[in-house]
Amino acid sequence: MSLFSEINEQPDRIRALLGSQRKTTEKIAAAIHKHKIDYVFLAARGTSDNAGRYANYLLGAKNSLPLALATPSLFTYYKKPPVLKNALVVGISQSGKSPDIVSVLEEGRRQGCLTLSMTNEPASPLAQASDFVLELQAGAEKAVAATKTYTTELMCVAMLSAALADDKKMWEELAKVPAWMKQALKQSDFISEAVQRYRYIDQTVVLGRGFNYATAFEWALKLKELTYIIAEPYSSADFAHGPIAMVESGYPVLAVAAKGKVFDSMLEMLKRLRSDIAAELVVISNDKRALSLAQVPLTIPTETPEWLSPLVSILPAQLFAYHLTRAKGYNTEQPRSIRKVTETK
Amino acid sequence: MSLFSEINEQPDRIRALLGSQRKTTEKIAAAIHKHKIDYVFLAARGTSDNAGRYANYLLGAKNSLPLALATPSLFTYYKKPPVLKNALVVGISQSGKSPDIVSVLEEGRRQGCLTLSMTNEPASPLAQASDFVLELQAGAEKAVAATKTYTTELMCVAMLSAALADDKKMWEELAKVPAWMKQALKQSDFISEAVQRYRYIDQTVVLGRGFNYATAFEWALKLKELTYIIAEPYSSADFAHGPIAMVESGYPVLAVAAKGKVFDSMLEMLKRLRSDIAAELVVISNDKRALSLAQVPLTIPTETPEWLSPLVSILPAQLFAYHLTRAKGYNTEQPRSIRKVTETK
Repeated sequence: MSLFSEINEQPDRIRALLGSQRKTTEKIAAAIHKHKIDYVFLAARGTSDNAGRYANYLLGAKNSLPLALATPSLFTYYKKPPVLKNALVVGISQSGKSPDIVSVLEEGRRQGCLTLSMTNEPASPLAQASDFVLELQAGAEKAVAATKTYTTELMCVAMLSAALADDKKMWEELAKVPAWMKQALKQSDFISEAVQRYRYIDQTVVLGRGFNYATAFEWALKLKELTYIIAEPYSSADFAHGPIAMVESGYPVLAVAAKGKVFDSMLEMLKRLRSDIAAELVVISNDKRALSLAQVPLTIPTETPEWLSPLVSILPAQLFAYHLTRAKGYNTEQPRSIRKVTETK
Repeated sequence: MSLFSEINEQPDRIRALLGSQRKTTEKIAAAIHKHKIDYVFLAARGTSDNAGRYANYLLGAKNSLPLALATPSLFTYYKKPPVLKNALVVGISQSGKSPDIVSVLEEGRRQGCLTLSMTNEPASPLAQASDFVLELQAGAEKAVAATKTYTTELMCVAMLSAALADDKKMWEELAKVPAWMKQALKQSDFISEAVQRYRYIDQTVVLGRGFNYATAFEWALKLKELTYIIAEPYSSADFAHGPIAMVESGYPVLAVAAKGKVFDSMLEMLKRLRSDIAAELVVISNDKRALSLAQVPLTIPTETPEWLSPLVSILPAQLFAYHLTRAKGYNTEQPRSIRKVTETK
């Protein structure tokens, strides 16, 4: 079973990446500082787009860099790429083969921008179109649903942020991620029991905010790819702006509520869902107040700092998707209708 | 019934806006050219965020301007706003009262950026935080679900794009929008019959791409607010990257496929859904090939140019949401659990 073993490989892959790629990220950070970048222009699809969402918050909060997510069709279908003045152009893709992502990097290079790719394939067209390459070094990913390439993408983003900030404490915290991940993975047996309750759900919403907005998107994507349920991700703020109207008593809501700056707002939403609407809650958190509101509480280590919590909180989410797929009797390795590399233009 | 009359008011509101605000948009365009903007930094929530998605494509394709969608929590919770060098900071909000959107504009002004707001309330805090204000002039919107403030927001974006491009043909096409809208609204009776078929759906996906990526999001949002069904929007490219796995025979898929640069890719997806999976299709289009694949075809005028099609294609979508709400026996004016102005931070 590739998916389960790939999920469990993640702490080791992350530790190896941290050991081998720190120098490269520091070199890239030096080039970025030298180029006087105004903003980051980032292109990605699917799981890698969720790593881009993490970059949006992290590079903003830690490095004061605004980030624009590219709309690849402007490059491919409309043939009207924007003028990328003073932009750092970044492409994230496991395979490095998506033509639309490659075309964004090629255009960035053509316009004289500094270009950077994060990919598991250092010989791919994406890597070849880039000044700098951060290799994911995740090893071959055989399951169609991406897991270890997601967390290695997050790790590349986190290391780049630490290098840009030149912050010793950030590097110290990065070194602890593999241990926190191992801790989180210990819940596998518990989760395989807990998902039985959700054998017959066919829809859900997934809430997260700030750094874990990315986690909500990635949890939802795994559920859609593997279990075929409708799982829609939201920031709790956007959710309160309208979609909360569809939640009725007993409706299953999944939430990621790590301790940190946005925790209070997440907790308030969870209380509202539980007390006012009697929604059903599955909560990933390291705070007892949030966990105590859940029918199914999933924990991450208490000391995980908010900025690194997405690397850890996605693991119980991956396990939840994996075990629910088995509970529903579906194929965990090869979901119907999708391929590993999607040749979107 | 405010919602129905507000939907039908739109052609007149758009015509009035075009008459009264052209000079203002030309003045704003001149200021933008003078400031040598590198990119647009745009803050919005909910329906207004969908107008921001339209701006992302339109200002890119017609004006070569990259656009970054703000993550307001970086400003409010994390207190770590990015450095907005050479950015045009734009806020879109019907009420002009959302504290998180206001805080983005205030920060832009503090950093010396050019600031612009689009709002229905010219005396609002948002307008007061801005160098320039484009008034929506939509009149009071009484229904909780926004309709005429959405299309007037789109119109402000479209007028700004025409003014920036200083393109006579664009202004000529803008003048035709009210007539195209009127044409699209004539389908109301047909739609009220057609929605009966969907009385018992509880989930759907909504597909769109390019300029009409925004339309897919806004159609989905109206359905969620009014009918409480799960309706998840996708670009057809992202959809092919995984979520298509959840579509089975008979699954209802809504799609916006206006003629233009991305039409062929939308048509290919619609054929795949119809022939390979036997999905159920509701399609808004002005191309017979796309309409002929649909169980329920909804039309917009043939001559509508792609860049303005979002202003027209959203009307059958609004009518679809309105009539489905009635078919399901829900309140069209005051959905449960949501308020008109959401005080998100």
